[in-house]
Amino acid sequence: MAQTKGTVVLAYSGGLDTSCILVWLKEQGYDVIAYLANIGQNEDFDEARKKAVHLGAKKVFIEDMRQEFVEQFIWPAVQANAIYEDRYLLGTSLARPCIARKQVEIAKREGAKYVSHGATGKGNDQIRFELTCYSLYPEVQIIAPWRLPEFYTRFKGRSDLMDYAKKHDIPVPVTPKNPWSMDENIMHISYEAGVLENPKNRAPAGLFQKTKDPSSCPATPDILEIEFKEGVPVQVTNLNDRTRHNKSLELFAYLNEIAGTHGVGRIDIVENRFIGMKSRGIYETPAGTILHHAHLDIETFTMDREVRKIKQHLSKSFSEQVYNGFWFSPECDFIRSCISRSQELVEGKVQVSVLRGQVYILGRESPKSLYNEELVSMDVQGDYEPSDASGFIKINAVR
Amino acid sequence: MAQTKGTVVLAYSGGLDTSCILVWLKEQGYDVIAYLANIGQNEDFDEARKKAVHLGAKKVFIEDMRQEFVEQFIWPAVQANAIYEDRYLLGTSLARPCIARKQVEIAKREGAKYVSHGATGKGNDQIRFELTCYSLYPEVQIIAPWRLPEFYTRFKGRSDLMDYAKKHDIPVPVTPKNPWSMDENIMHISYEAGVLENPKNRAPAGLFQKTKDPSSCPATPDILEIEFKEGVPVQVTNLNDRTRHNKSLELFAYLNEIAGTHGVGRIDIVENRFIGMKSRGIYETPAGTILHHAHLDIETFTMDREVRKIKQHLSKSFSEQVYNGFWFSPECDFIRSCISRSQELVEGKVQVSVLRGQVYILGRESPKSLYNEELVSMDVQGDYEPSDASGFIKINAVR
Amino acid sequence: MAQTKGTVVLAYSGGLDTSCILVWLKEQGYDVIAYLANIGQNEDFDEARKKAVHLGAKKVFIEDMRQEFVEQFIWPAVQANAIYEDRYLLGTSLARPCIARKQVEIAKREGAKYVSHGATGKGNDQIRFELTCYSLYPEVQIIAPWRLPEFYTRFKGRSDLMDYAKKHDIPVPVTPKNPWSMDENIMHISYEAGVLENPKNRAPAGLFQKTKDPSSCPATPDILEIEFKEGVPVQVTNLNDRTRHNKSLELFAYLNEIAGTHGVGRIDIVENRFIGMKSRGIYETPAGTILHHAHLDIETFTMDREVRKIKQHLSKSFSEQVYNGFWFSPECDFIRSCISRSQELVEGKVQVSVLRGQVYILGRESPKSLYNEELVSMDVQGDYEPSDASGFIKINAVR
Amino acid sequence: MAQTKGTVVLAYSGGLDTSCILVWLKEQGYDVIAYLANIGQNEDFDEARKKAVHLGAKKVFIEDMRQEFVEQFIWPAVQANAIYEDRYLLGTSLARPCIARKQVEIAKREGAKYVSHGATGKGNDQIRFELTCYSLYPEVQIIAPWRLPEFYTRFKGRSDLMDYAKKHDIPVPVTPKNPWSMDENIMHISYEAGVLENPKNRAPAGLFQKTKDPSSCPATPDILEIEFKEGVPVQVTNLNDRTRHNKSLELFAYLNEIAGTHGVGRIDIVENRFIGMKSRGIYETPAGTILHHAHLDIETFTMDREVRKIKQHLSKSFSEQVYNGFWFSPECDFIRSCISRSQELVEGKVQVSVLRGQVYILGRESPKSLYNEELVSMDVQGDYEPSDASGFIKINAVR
Repeated sequence: MAQTKGTVVLAYSGGLDTSCILVWLKEQGYDVIAYLANIGQNEDFDEARKKAVHLGAKKVFIEDMRQEFVEQFIWPAVQANAIYEDRYLLGTSLARPCIARKQVEIAKREGAKYVSHGATGKGNDQIRFELTCYSLYPEVQIIAPWRLPEFYTRFKGRSDLMDYAKKHDIPVPVTPKNPWSMDENIMHISYEAGVLENPKNRAPAGLFQKTKDPSSCPATPDILEIEFKEGVPVQVTNLNDRTRHNKSLELFAYLNEIAGTHGVGRIDIVENRFIGMKSRGIYETPAGTILHHAHLDIETFTMDREVRKIKQHLSKSFSEQVYNGFWFSPECDFIRSCISRSQELVEGKVQVSVLRGQVYILGRESPKSLYNEELVSMDVQGDYEPSDASGFIKINAVR
Repeated sequence: MAQTKGTVVLAYSGGLDTSCILVWLKEQGYDVIAYLANIGQNEDFDEARKKAVHLGAKKVFIEDMRQEFVEQFIWPAVQANAIYEDRYLLGTSLARPCIARKQVEIAKREGAKYVSHGATGKGNDQIRFELTCYSLYPEVQIIAPWRLPEFYTRFKGRSDLMDYAKKHDIPVPVTPKNPWSMDENIMHISYEAGVLENPKNRAPAGLFQKTKDPSSCPATPDILEIEFKEGVPVQVTNLNDRTRHNKSLELFAYLNEIAGTHGVGRIDIVENRFIGMKSRGIYETPAGTILHHAHLDIETFTMDREVRKIKQHLSKSFSEQVYNGFWFSPECDFIRSCISRSQELVEGKVQVSVLRGQVYILGRESPKSLYNEELVSMDVQGDYEPSDASGFIKINAVR
Repeated sequence: MAQTKGTVVLAYSGGLDTSCILVWLKEQGYDVIAYLANIGQNEDFDEARKKAVHLGAKKVFIEDMRQEFVEQFIWPAVQANAIYEDRYLLGTSLARPCIARKQVEIAKREGAKYVSHGATGKGNDQIRFELTCYSLYPEVQIIAPWRLPEFYTRFKGRSDLMDYAKKHDIPVPVTPKNPWSMDENIMHISYEAGVLENPKNRAPAGLFQKTKDPSSCPATPDILEIEFKEGVPVQVTNLNDRTRHNKSLELFAYLNEIAGTHGVGRIDIVENRFIGMKSRGIYETPAGTILHHAHLDIETFTMDREVRKIKQHLSKSFSEQVYNGFWFSPECDFIRSCISRSQELVEGKVQVSVLRGQVYILGRESPKSLYNEELVSMDVQGDYEPSDASGFIKINAVR
Repeated sequence: MAQTKGTVVLAYSGGLDTSCILVWLKEQGYDVIAYLANIGQNEDFDEARKKAVHLGAKKVFIEDMRQEFVEQFIWPAVQANAIYEDRYLLGTSLARPCIARKQVEIAKREGAKYVSHGATGKGNDQIRFELTCYSLYPEVQIIAPWRLPEFYTRFKGRSDLMDYAKKHDIPVPVTPKNPWSMDENIMHISYEAGVLENPKNRAPAGLFQKTKDPSSCPATPDILEIEFKEGVPVQVTNLNDRTRHNKSLELFAYLNEIAGTHGVGRIDIVENRFIGMKSRGIYETPAGTILHHAHLDIETFTMDREVRKIKQHLSKSFSEQVYNGFWFSPECDFIRSCISRSQELVEGKVQVSVLRGQVYILGRESPKSLYNEELVSMDVQGDYEPSDASGFIKINAVR
């Protein structure tokens, strides 16, 4: 039997594209290890495993990455108030380095010199994926079929893939594909491409999977108390029914449930990809949206004004780094350590109302608050000398 | 008859505080000109005029500043996506320099060497007000009674003012005062102080004046098409009923109406004042909130990514300058001119749905868009060479 | 006769590399137009023209770009205080877009679909060159032989080029090549590669071409008065001998002469290239160094503090853009227009002493100065109220 | 005997001003503790002690702060490449918090409720001094005579002080005062005020105390090898004579000596004071200038490009904080900890030539260098694939 070209660890999703890639890689002479990360997407993992075996994967690894994803990637983003171009909470961007790190781990452990993925040649994900690989496994060789002329000229559209699938006994999805593409994890779903490419087209009815339509949401809010320590949510209590969660994954899942019920977390944006083009995306980030508002509130409440200015500047850089795929880079390491340092005193409870697409802050309290009720009071003189303000203003006007 | 100490132009609101100040200034030997700016607050201006005359104002000027406020102050803020500490749309901050500029104009015209205001000694407004005055009328002398020991030790609370009012035939409000203070203009209402000073206390029922409670808003959205030219809204069309407005003031008022109906624009925050203390404020900014979302969308759609990064950095500075009262400063002039330059191509139409406290972007189009549907398409190869991305990624990984 | 593949405009230097490239391009079937920009390098342009004709160039364009380079590229850099990584005054970076713009102009005029250059595949110049071309002539095709495997595997070192030259009757330099490479224009010379690649090696004796060794410079300074208008030098007067220049090119050449005599403008740095690697470079920037110091001085003297902060932030971005090759980009256009706006009042005279490697500022004066001698004086009370400072400090300590 | 108003710790310099203040404070009814910090200024400390006792100080503390100053204040500034407005190395600014911290320590230990200083009401030092005091001893009361009308209207100029001194048996300096003021510490001397207030006036001959005139410096350089660990100089070796120092204070003093001999570290600038006015200052910073250049070099050599960008941004803020007096503030703590984190790998040796007013970098080496000689080499292909650059450039041109 002919020697193989070596072993490749393929980021396998269970869908048509990566199934075809799996078979195609074998066809090219590689041994293929299929790797499927469970980061909270809606997927039948057993079925996916069987399928991969059936398609000829030498080994199949299905890894539950959910807790790691929440604690090591989402929490730092919450601490940072990470947001790209003022709107996007980075759901996909955060998942890539988490997935790719494990893939590299498997490749090293299994002695594979190659990794492969099904990301397209125009998107951000290829970059996020590959920068992680090069950073953690510099000698690795990456096979990105959608950038290889021998692949992309052969598979020009979905029908070519379907033909290939039929020919190679690859199971074909029975339900017709939506006229857009979707990417899901525990933090969010993104919708793009297809009919959504025209930025004027509205999101079709039935698109959203994680959140209810705000026009048919309940009229009664859920009132949550979210407790933070060091800038990270440590407990969520529903004040309506006293439901309480304090484990990272459960807490996050519960916030997804509440936010989903109330239609919270939908956006429709045009964003600037790293490779320079603008693209339209529609996103649902239910729990992430609640946490973004709540963290912003407790942070402003407990953090010194000037520290916060510097921290927010760092966060802007952090968000760009994450979006562009540089999670595993010296600069992102550096910024994460600075941001983490800034969160030491970000502690306290925020009460929020979740209602019909919105998150309303109701109040907050903290043992570490810099808020001084007496100082700010209009009714209490306290130590503050109003006449000092005259000097302050005059000096500020000297220029 | 004794000579007066000179003429003072008092920023007069018609309320108890500035009425007392008017009389007190006369008592101190000044001639008082009462100046009341109509910037869209809910006020009986005829009544206020009569009252001022009755209290002994030598002259009374009531100026309709609404259009000036919208075009010269709110529009630049919309262009800038101005937002303070990620949440506050600067409704009060924008109004101060507009009001003070006119007051200075009157003082110069009337030969008054003094101006006066009723702002407290702990707030931002005194600074915004006075920096404007010093900038436009450097020789002016400012009388800020709430910072003068002879005033604030005499009037320690509301009851002292009430006593003084009764003694000096100053009309006293018949309705009991809310246990918080309020500041209104066409852009927003702020609520702070009193029971709100405890940051944990929720906003009392019945607080909000400009927006309906989201839990009782209509279930059907208004769908608006907002058209921008050079980053400024030039036309709003309600796609439900074809209502259309293209004059700045009418357009803005209409957006207030729609946003108010759907409960859009409420926030509850703790912010950092310029003088260094944290304070809790609740704000309603109906039209401003819609415009913030719509402008953000059309700007990202039409502006180069790197230009936008620079512009957003400038906007952050702009927001701080405005918040801190430096509208009339060399740096704010400079930044406004840079931001204005960045808006030349920000043109197009955004469709938004306004529903139950939220503004949803539905789609956008522009003659100046940098969006290239073919380039971004997953189905079309176009000029873009996927293999270029390999080199791009590898070079980005060189470090 | 066989049809050619089309016409290529080659950036021709007269040296061995581009001479070989010229012949090689012909060999590949192109018609070659040789283009040589005079940007102030030490070169026998007549000789270069003859050589290009001799090698078979269809046309030869030798363009005097010196004034354009000074006024349109160096002046904006002076206004910006442009400096990369705190040390490099960007001499090469500024020249590339100037050279490439003209090359594109020629290509368009001559109907050439191709442009070519001799820059290596690891450097910054290829990027600066090509980004300019793509920006101004998006359809152009670029032939970069040092990135083409068929070229760089054939010419692995200088000896391969020498062999090729001998074989094709290409004149070979008679003097042995220095063990480093050099790039010169009116603003600077850079030295890198070869023995300089080891960052520990000192610059060899005899390396520097534009400046005298500071250890053997005159002991008497030249005292210059440099006058600026709108941030640009408009007149230089040598106060020793009253020599005076007020034309851009003459003025700049004169500053080069003076600075060269006194050994001003040498640096030895390791810098970060755009493509991610660190490289060691030694630079001489005589006139540029004087102007950098003088402009910094007059600018700080005449510009508002806060405007300057914003401007310096923009300048940092500008310097990176220029270094990375983005002169002709929307963001660099935007920043140049902002910086230019900031220079309107940067006007006045700076006196400098140029002596033994250093530029010393001696004094400055300006009709537009914000400097207020009375205000700052320790002996004069003036309008300034010292007690205001107490309030200023106390309020600054509130946090 | 009448009770005193309490105890005040006076920052005493030994000069005329603070001697008069000492006596004046007693006159006002305070017990005075004289505190004199030795931070490396040229002063007869024994004489100063006697004088203070003679003037009636209850206690006198003379504290040798030099090592503390170098290690806890100058080293962080070296790590930061701290520089204000691109030129000023912050010699005075760094000393103030060091001096004031000890003064507060003494005040607390001695149970003094008051501290006092002789800084003027227009300068930066009052702010630096007092912000430190308020930060470390919030309840303290500060007596700043030069801001008290009863003091500054009484002492309008030097002759009033002289009269007062004669009347109160305060020793009067025998040498006539220079027509400018001076402030010295181990890091620098500043000269300002008097004849220097006119920004056009050149520095008078004989002004400089720490450095020789570059026109009469030796023609032979000293060649130093400066070794850094974690961004801090740990050893200096003079390669001419093998002199070697590795203790912070000795090392710094030695660099002062070498730099002084070669006339290194003089600048003449106009700067923007915190209180808004521009002022002219002439500074000598001998050792600091060498270290600034050397650290910049080793840092760029060993630090990742993107980390450095972020770090340089932080350093700019740090420099402003230090200049404005906010060393002991949450934001400056935060930034120092971030900068310190960035220095972990800043390690290696820099060779510099110190000659006639200049510091020339000759070369550098590091065990932690990111410099890859093979990668950057023009002669070695290595792993780098030149064709990758084509993709990199094309993608960068997509916008």
